[in-house]
Amino acid sequence: MPDIGAHQLEVAETLIGVGRFLVVFVAARLLAELLVRWQLPTILGELLAGVIIGASGLHLIVPPETQAAVSQGVLQVLGSLADVPADVVGELYAESFPTLQAVATLGLFALLFLTGLESDLDELVAVGSQATTVALAGVALPFVAGTAGLMTIFHVDLIQAVFAGASMTATSIGITASVFGELKMLRSREGQIVIGAAVLDDILGIVILAVVVSLAGGGSLAIGPILKLVAAAVVFVVAAIGLSRTAAPGFDWLIDRLRAPGDVVVASFVVLSLCCFAATAIGLEAALGAFAAGLILSKSAHTHAIEAAVKPVVALFATIFFVLIGTGMDLSVLNPLDPANRPGLIVAAFLLVVAIAGKVAAGWCFFSQQPTQRLVVGLGMMPRGEVGLIFLGLGTQAKLLSPPLEAAILLMVIGTTFLAPVLLRLVLAGKSNGPDLDPLAEIPT
Amino acid sequence: MPDIGAHQLEVAETLIGVGRFLVVFVAARLLAELLVRWQLPTILGELLAGVIIGASGLHLIVPPETQAAVSQGVLQVLGSLADVPADVVGELYAESFPTLQAVATLGLFALLFLTGLESDLDELVAVGSQATTVALAGVALPFVAGTAGLMTIFHVDLIQAVFAGASMTATSIGITASVFGELKMLRSREGQIVIGAAVLDDILGIVILAVVVSLAGGGSLAIGPILKLVAAAVVFVVAAIGLSRTAAPGFDWLIDRLRAPGDVVVASFVVLSLCCFAATAIGLEAALGAFAAGLILSKSAHTHAIEAAVKPVVALFATIFFVLIGTGMDLSVLNPLDPANRPGLIVAAFLLVVAIAGKVAAGWCFFSQQPTQRLVVGLGMMPRGEVGLIFLGLGTQAKLLSPPLEAAILLMVIGTTFLAPVLLRLVLAGKSNGPDLDPLAEIPT
Repeated sequence: MPDIGAHQLEVAETLIGVGRFLVVFVAARLLAELLVRWQLPTILGELLAGVIIGASGLHLIVPPETQAAVSQGVLQVLGSLADVPADVVGELYAESFPTLQAVATLGLFALLFLTGLESDLDELVAVGSQATTVALAGVALPFVAGTAGLMTIFHVDLIQAVFAGASMTATSIGITASVFGELKMLRSREGQIVIGAAVLDDILGIVILAVVVSLAGGGSLAIGPILKLVAAAVVFVVAAIGLSRTAAPGFDWLIDRLRAPGDVVVASFVVLSLCCFAATAIGLEAALGAFAAGLILSKSAHTHAIEAAVKPVVALFATIFFVLIGTGMDLSVLNPLDPANRPGLIVAAFLLVVAIAGKVAAGWCFFSQQPTQRLVVGLGMMPRGEVGLIFLGLGTQAKLLSPPLEAAILLMVIGTTFLAPVLLRLVLAGKSNGPDLDPLAEIPT
Repeated sequence: MPDIGAHQLEVAETLIGVGRFLVVFVAARLLAELLVRWQLPTILGELLAGVIIGASGLHLIVPPETQAAVSQGVLQVLGSLADVPADVVGELYAESFPTLQAVATLGLFALLFLTGLESDLDELVAVGSQATTVALAGVALPFVAGTAGLMTIFHVDLIQAVFAGASMTATSIGITASVFGELKMLRSREGQIVIGAAVLDDILGIVILAVVVSLAGGGSLAIGPILKLVAAAVVFVVAAIGLSRTAAPGFDWLIDRLRAPGDVVVASFVVLSLCCFAATAIGLEAALGAFAAGLILSKSAHTHAIEAAVKPVVALFATIFFVLIGTGMDLSVLNPLDPANRPGLIVAAFLLVVAIAGKVAAGWCFFSQQPTQRLVVGLGMMPRGEVGLIFLGLGTQAKLLSPPLEAAILLMVIGTTFLAPVLLRLVLAGKSNGPDLDPLAEIPT
């Protein structure tokens, strides 16, 4: 590296950081505005914006994991503005990318916190048994059908087939919550079943992931850590429900005693951070802690103030989260003209059918005395989003998967993620002003 | 590094990231609540919280620049929770620190954006000549007195003396804006003179920094880049004032046409990012761009919606910014019992007096036909905060400064930063309900 002043490097870093925000926001907004006019959820626009500016498109926002190169033109423009060589700008770009990802994660946590906050705890507990059977069926059906199908039809070996099956198990709560929120369906019976089931299948997904990683690692299964995880999951669910019945008055007591400005938003984020920390510390996902934090505060007297404070954070940073999911998707594997893609495409078609059918079928796997739109529940469980991409990333990292299977899993994730909002919107078309919908349940303002 | 699974590393990273947020928020809130009860500005509590949890205190939040070690106990607790060795946790801690700093910078930008938004443009232009003379005097007096005093009394050599003098020139807009905002004085005549002057002396500070760095680098002065900077500064001020008179209707036209949720906050952040990018690209500070963005939107019909959306972001992230300033301050140089500290302490006392007297005197350096509290203006210009620390960091990096002079500059920064809010509060005690104060001008909610 030539001798470059600290000041120039700082200028380059600022240009990269601010420029990335700018590109993400402008692209997300343009696509969201377009899709809103077609009656489609804005999250779809954010995902598409990510694809367009990401590793499959303009190469403006390129997560280092994708191994794709940032657009050389952009590096040169930034380099000449900051008086720094383009390759140094490229290094700074890669080094500072985790910051964008951390802000995106903050957005996901804020979104799940808001989802918990806007959940109706009594309704969630009331639909608890339905949510549990939907979650179990939605995990078991795609996993068993996927693994068995890959082994029998495509002769994939056991470990790979189990891994691919596992990657189909967990619903993306973020995408589901965002779609239901925008359709003002979050507090509906269907919405609460889907959210409850998505939380539970996330927990199941973590357990399955532990099993699969343990299988892939040594071949033999370590029972101890897995029992610990299951115990942690039970403790977590019980504690979250217990605290959401009891902790809100304590929070309100504290808020009423705080006098410095910004009390509500900072106190909420302290609860949010605490729950994320606790969930991570016992081996679960921080995202589950974020949802639990919202649930715990959902009975607070200050929910409207908390919502008002959290919504702008969600609008800004969850947008970045969804755009980044899009940037990481490599759509070139979709091209059927490239013969190298064909084996992947055939496996992908199979996985996609199993992934859709398995979750939609799960929508029929519960007893209910009240009328419930089972198709809405099934479609709501469909998007795999970031959870599927995390599985894929782990599999790729561990060199477990053959390239066609990798491409097939990616296509399954892309397909379910993009189809779910579209299909939900079609099924719900004209119903968004129905009597059982709460207009307050809208997510971002 | 032993063979650690990717999953454990991710768990450790999440615990570090979430845990740091938690510590920052809890400490800042505790101290802010304490100081509010003593009628002191909360920002002082945030700075003190930083000192307590930072490199001078508990070593929980330690910026890598300080070279201090993170508390071994914390690393061990996090390590055992994530099943990762403590030294690996330490590496992850240092690697991920820039994320916290980036979020803090976002908070500063949001604060300055809000300051611009809540500024009264007509008042700001009306006090333009007063702000200019205050800025010029507030830069010239401490610079000349400091440099000359260090050379004649303490026999410091030219370059070091010029550098120390330069470090006393620029007011921290962030701290000043936060104090005036909390005292509901931002839109007062004094508030607008101070904000205007702080913006201008930030621009002057950048020019001086360029001169000093150029002097320190080769010894000879490169005139070209400095003229370019001055031209950029002029263009910037003219463009910001021009756009703030003309661009708001265009912004409102756009907002009225946007339909996807989150329109106001995302559109505001697009303008904010654009201005920060433009300011950085022409060689000025991004922070100035943030203030200009607020000023440009200050005539929008949507200012209330923008304020409501930006305030939670400020309450969360500007808090982190001020806490981080505190964490970087090494108060051990304050201990007079350590003989090694004494030369620094004597020089520090001199610099502190010059730094205070220079800015307070600047409060008398303007003509005004209306009654203006000159002491409030002078004290408002006093805090050096992050700007002083940036100068110090550059000087340390370039190995320009002797250790006693380094300590003295740090003490000057600490002294002016902590004294300004206290003295302002004392001078303004009982006046915060005065007739010319706008209660809407409060900054964080």
